[in-house]
Amino acid sequence: MRCFRLTIAYDGTDFLGWQWQPGQRTVQGALEAALARVAQSASRAVASSRTDAGVHALGQAVSLLAETRLDASTLGRALNANLPRDMVVRKVEEAPSGFHAIEHARGKRYRYVIHNAPLPDPLARRYAWQIAQPLDVASMHAAAQALVGPHDFRGYQSAGSRRVSTLRTVRELRIVRCDMPPESFDGAGEARRVVLEVEADGFLYNMVRNIVGTLVEVGRGKRPVQWPAEVLAAGDRRLAGMTAPPHGLYLLRVFFDF
Amino acid sequence: MRCFRLTIAYDGTDFLGWQWQPGQRTVQGALEAALARVAQSASRAVASSRTDAGVHALGQAVSLLAETRLDASTLGRALNANLPRDMVVRKVEEAPSGFHAIEHARGKRYRYVIHNAPLPDPLARRYAWQIAQPLDVASMHAAAQALVGPHDFRGYQSAGSRRVSTLRTVRELRIVRCDMPPESFDGAGEARRVVLEVEADGFLYNMVRNIVGTLVEVGRGKRPVQWPAEVLAAGDRRLAGMTAPPHGLYLLRVFFDF
Repeated sequence: MRCFRLTIAYDGTDFLGWQWQPGQRTVQGALEAALARVAQSASRAVASSRTDAGVHALGQAVSLLAETRLDASTLGRALNANLPRDMVVRKVEEAPSGFHAIEHARGKRYRYVIHNAPLPDPLARRYAWQIAQPLDVASMHAAAQALVGPHDFRGYQSAGSRRVSTLRTVRELRIVRCDMPPESFDGAGEARRVVLEVEADGFLYNMVRNIVGTLVEVGRGKRPVQWPAEVLAAGDRRLAGMTAPPHGLYLLRVFFDF
Repeated sequence: MRCFRLTIAYDGTDFLGWQWQPGQRTVQGALEAALARVAQSASRAVASSRTDAGVHALGQAVSLLAETRLDASTLGRALNANLPRDMVVRKVEEAPSGFHAIEHARGKRYRYVIHNAPLPDPLARRYAWQIAQPLDVASMHAAAQALVGPHDFRGYQSAGSRRVSTLRTVRELRIVRCDMPPESFDGAGEARRVVLEVEADGFLYNMVRNIVGTLVEVGRGKRPVQWPAEVLAAGDRRLAGMTAPPHGLYLLRVFFDF
């Protein structure tokens, strides 16, 4: 069996998340079904992030073992020919024996997209969280800086996780308004997006969505700028804001040492 | 009966186009069904552009007569509460009696989006035409300039149209590469878009999609830069390129004198 690293992208809308579930349409299920058609045999596929239903990925990392005579890029093309249209294998690389997408991940980067406009955008309904009230993005960004660095993030962790340590290091956390469509676009104001990007050595369960839900309270003016830092210091999930909905979340990238 | 102008947006993917058809899901059908629930009575809805199945709209214009005591903005909210999530009424205005969305339109602006990358983007599969081969966008833009101005566009008209005159004035036609994602985005290269925008006093049937299909031949290097001008001069649809698929097309805006 040879060891491979796959980089995959998917529209999470019509999947019940990454994890295989009997009789359900999941990313893992679709990938393993395609793998069964193109390789002699294969192990289970392991993803760096077990994304929930509705969560999207542009650069999910997957490790697996497979018995095949295909070279890596041919394997990628063969998989794509057997995958549904809402997912794609972007890259296949031969990996060192023993490579494991969870154990060897050194960090991840996520994006969260908010459609900040009074009316829903029918073209963004699967891909952004609509918030009608104008958000104070500068305050959200300022508040977020208290979360950068090594901290105990248990206050931003949802129940149902098995992580032993809740210490994580956030390397970067930025929130910007992307109102300005590219120069070529008709400025019809349809692109009223607030975009958050966050990179850390690892994330607790629902950590990004809990951070977003908490920062949005600041953006709405319901909580002061120092509140997200207080939630962090208190370490109590019940103090934090709501969990932002899954469909605004994108796994952008997983980092490895090699 | 009062006369109204509506500005509506929709994701065309799951509609069989604008035009009402028995037993089919169409934009006109959904709008008129919502109208029947919120107004005492109403006329048929007339759209400036009878978009085909799969074509999207950010600023479609609609005229209609309705008997209602609601003011314009309340009528808009009531309609939105009764519309499916893949369409939205952006604006309702009281219009001068006799206003007609087709007869009084003075121009329209469309956008066409191409995902120009070797691999399909699962998140763009409903919203952009994927072309794997790198396009020479500068040549496409240069070629397109021959179409700007008043011309007989019969060479770019698909069969099935009833327009009497095929003379139209293209006011602007731009094609740009939008490779650069906004500064806040991780430059993972996922936003490889080529965007065309075109504005004219009016369009023949499939005119934008035929222009795009023709310019793409130039972009692929299969035809010289002067070829789109030759198709225009010859006035023969059989000489032009393919009709680009509907799902990359967006009606951006309709212009009126008032």
